[in-house]
Amino acid sequence: MSTCIFSKTAAELIPSGIRKISDKVNERIDKGERIFNLTVGDFSPKVFPIPEGLKEEIKKAYDEDLTNYPPSNGVPVLRQAISKYIKERGGFEYSPEEIVIGSGARPLSYTLFKAVVNPGEKIVYPAPSWNNNCYIQLIDAVPAAIETKPENNFIATAEEIKPHIKDAALIAMNSPLNPAGTVYTKEELKKILEMIVAENKVREKENRKPLYVFYDMVYWILVYGETKHYNPIELVPEIRDYIVFIDGISKCFAATGVRLGWAFGPKPLIAKISAMLAHIGAWSPRPEQTATGRFLNRSEDVDKFFDKFKKEIFGRMNIFYDGVMEIKKLGYDVEAIYPQAAMYLTVKLNLIGKKTADGKILKDVDDVLAYVLEEGKIALVPFYAFGADPKSPWFRLSVGTCSMEEAKVAAMMLKDAVEKLK
Amino acid sequence: MSTCIFSKTAAELIPSGIRKISDKVNERIDKGERIFNLTVGDFSPKVFPIPEGLKEEIKKAYDEDLTNYPPSNGVPVLRQAISKYIKERGGFEYSPEEIVIGSGARPLSYTLFKAVVNPGEKIVYPAPSWNNNCYIQLIDAVPAAIETKPENNFIATAEEIKPHIKDAALIAMNSPLNPAGTVYTKEELKKILEMIVAENKVREKENRKPLYVFYDMVYWILVYGETKHYNPIELVPEIRDYIVFIDGISKCFAATGVRLGWAFGPKPLIAKISAMLAHIGAWSPRPEQTATGRFLNRSEDVDKFFDKFKKEIFGRMNIFYDGVMEIKKLGYDVEAIYPQAAMYLTVKLNLIGKKTADGKILKDVDDVLAYVLEEGKIALVPFYAFGADPKSPWFRLSVGTCSMEEAKVAAMMLKDAVEKLK
Repeated sequence: MSTCIFSKTAAELIPSGIRKISDKVNERIDKGERIFNLTVGDFSPKVFPIPEGLKEEIKKAYDEDLTNYPPSNGVPVLRQAISKYIKERGGFEYSPEEIVIGSGARPLSYTLFKAVVNPGEKIVYPAPSWNNNCYIQLIDAVPAAIETKPENNFIATAEEIKPHIKDAALIAMNSPLNPAGTVYTKEELKKILEMIVAENKVREKENRKPLYVFYDMVYWILVYGETKHYNPIELVPEIRDYIVFIDGISKCFAATGVRLGWAFGPKPLIAKISAMLAHIGAWSPRPEQTATGRFLNRSEDVDKFFDKFKKEIFGRMNIFYDGVMEIKKLGYDVEAIYPQAAMYLTVKLNLIGKKTADGKILKDVDDVLAYVLEEGKIALVPFYAFGADPKSPWFRLSVGTCSMEEAKVAAMMLKDAVEKLK
Repeated sequence: MSTCIFSKTAAELIPSGIRKISDKVNERIDKGERIFNLTVGDFSPKVFPIPEGLKEEIKKAYDEDLTNYPPSNGVPVLRQAISKYIKERGGFEYSPEEIVIGSGARPLSYTLFKAVVNPGEKIVYPAPSWNNNCYIQLIDAVPAAIETKPENNFIATAEEIKPHIKDAALIAMNSPLNPAGTVYTKEELKKILEMIVAENKVREKENRKPLYVFYDMVYWILVYGETKHYNPIELVPEIRDYIVFIDGISKCFAATGVRLGWAFGPKPLIAKISAMLAHIGAWSPRPEQTATGRFLNRSEDVDKFFDKFKKEIFGRMNIFYDGVMEIKKLGYDVEAIYPQAAMYLTVKLNLIGKKTADGKILKDVDDVLAYVLEEGKIALVPFYAFGADPKSPWFRLSVGTCSMEEAKVAAMMLKDAVEKLK
């Protein structure tokens, strides 16, 4: 064995599967190749700039010289605005003292994991899902992945979670789900939460650390049609002591590079997250904090932005959905889940075993990925990059980087590429 | 024992000693009391706004809609600008690939600790110093604090470090030192680095993980008079593989709330820090990154800002230094280290045992602190909040929040308060 020159954590660090794929694609794009990069959950600012009002407020905050240290838990105007925003739009009743600000949703997720899970303890999470495996590795916890099923829209069910909860420290929930863009049904969500509450009643009697829920709801604003984002506290009020919600502006305001997120949950736990975050220094800048608070209070401008933004995203998802349905009609084993939420279309491309025009057989998921990229100029992320089975024929198609016109061309090119397969 | 409802790390979390003191002071200020808050290493933006050019560039970057995800290691224009900046001003030769950007110096420090130290391994650091104990607790390492001496300007010497290096994983160095505002001498720094290089030659033969150096140089631009910030690589070139430098805009541009820092060091280690930082999401916003890169390239504007800024800070430090010397002349056991660097004056107020006008005896450091606050309206941080002995009569006096006039008044009020002691 060769010497490890780093810590065990650093040596065994899991690289981001998505970044690995998208970096390669970006290199080719930088060299002038025309590729539709539908990999990252990001936005092209030319197509999707942040709200004009948010931009104004940030510049104004700089003009006001709001450039010294923010309070550890975030500036009051922002925490007050979030308290109002989550209540009005989702029925979440949390005071500003139960809210903490971070430089995006990630640092809040990481510190939550670290605040409730000891090394060696078990974390239950769905596969595919985003980054849970990386957080688990970083805090040296034990992963318990639930391989979810397409027939459940890739959402983990109460029945699937049940065998794991006795010895779990944390359950990672995410709705709308990244990568699938699907949501919990009211019934299933209620069942899961009730199961956790029951488990915690047992643990309380036994004087044991409770089972916590990490609830990533970063895409909750982006729901379409009849889809509804349920408030877990409304369904099962007793869950409140054990659940922390993670949210932010990255996705709903197309502001991935502005770095501002928040967590809300029971006050003692939020205080711990805040203290940890302060040492780690994963704070959002004070101007962005103040500006976001002020912009959130401009409800009409927020509404206007959401209306247009959601229409644009949903429109692109529909174009790709229709495109996949056309390929399906040709008899290929392809599928897509009808757009429910987020910015991702879930696409099945079961093309293993097919022969390309130059006689090559597609042997595995990577072959399919490479073929679609070379022939169709479409870059996707396979579900295995989110921890699903390496043979899973499902892919995440992210629509934030293309215009409506480009979406149409991309969908057509995907169809043309698949049609060439025998 | 009562149940611990959090993780061990969260339960045992060390709160920031400085924040605890400054929060109390700020509460009183908010209620209308006039107090000179010389606690936090922060700036009043009214007195010390960020450079006008940096502000312009940030607003411009927002106008250019640079709002999508930055690359994990930071935008190229910034890493290129830093490479040039540290070379021109400090002789540090690091390519953009050896530099990584974070949301301030803290996340880079934290991830460096985590990237090279395993739980249970030893970290050597000076006491007093800033936040090392908190990082150590967060990664479950073993602290080896060296109680430094006033006669060495509170800088740990090679001789003091020597007994610890055989089994240490990391040595935390910091120059200019927070809290003392003092720097390494060339000779002492060289001795320490040579000792580490020698130790690593042994470890290499034994196929063991090397001993790393965390070198916090966040105040290196702020040196006054004859004080010089030495480049460790110039003194001992072989240290390069084992040292990571931490720097940022928080202090040199009075931009604590803008959240942008960088680390530079050997490429493989920087890559690990970058990957870890990506999972934790402690990124600086893309507009701030681009703007800082562009502003750093405006060398003349940077020079102009530094010249004025340093003069202002040094001026305030001198006012307080002179004030303490006047008290000393009156026969009190007070002292101050002549301003060398950073934004802190190191002040000794050995007033334990003295009697106040209303007959109360000052029994300990907290009594002294409270007296100076009540009678002089001066809020300071005792060195014990930085890990020094609880009986240490030394205090950190931070000058970033007051105007020149206020500094004069504050120095006078300190004198008046002490003079009342019998």
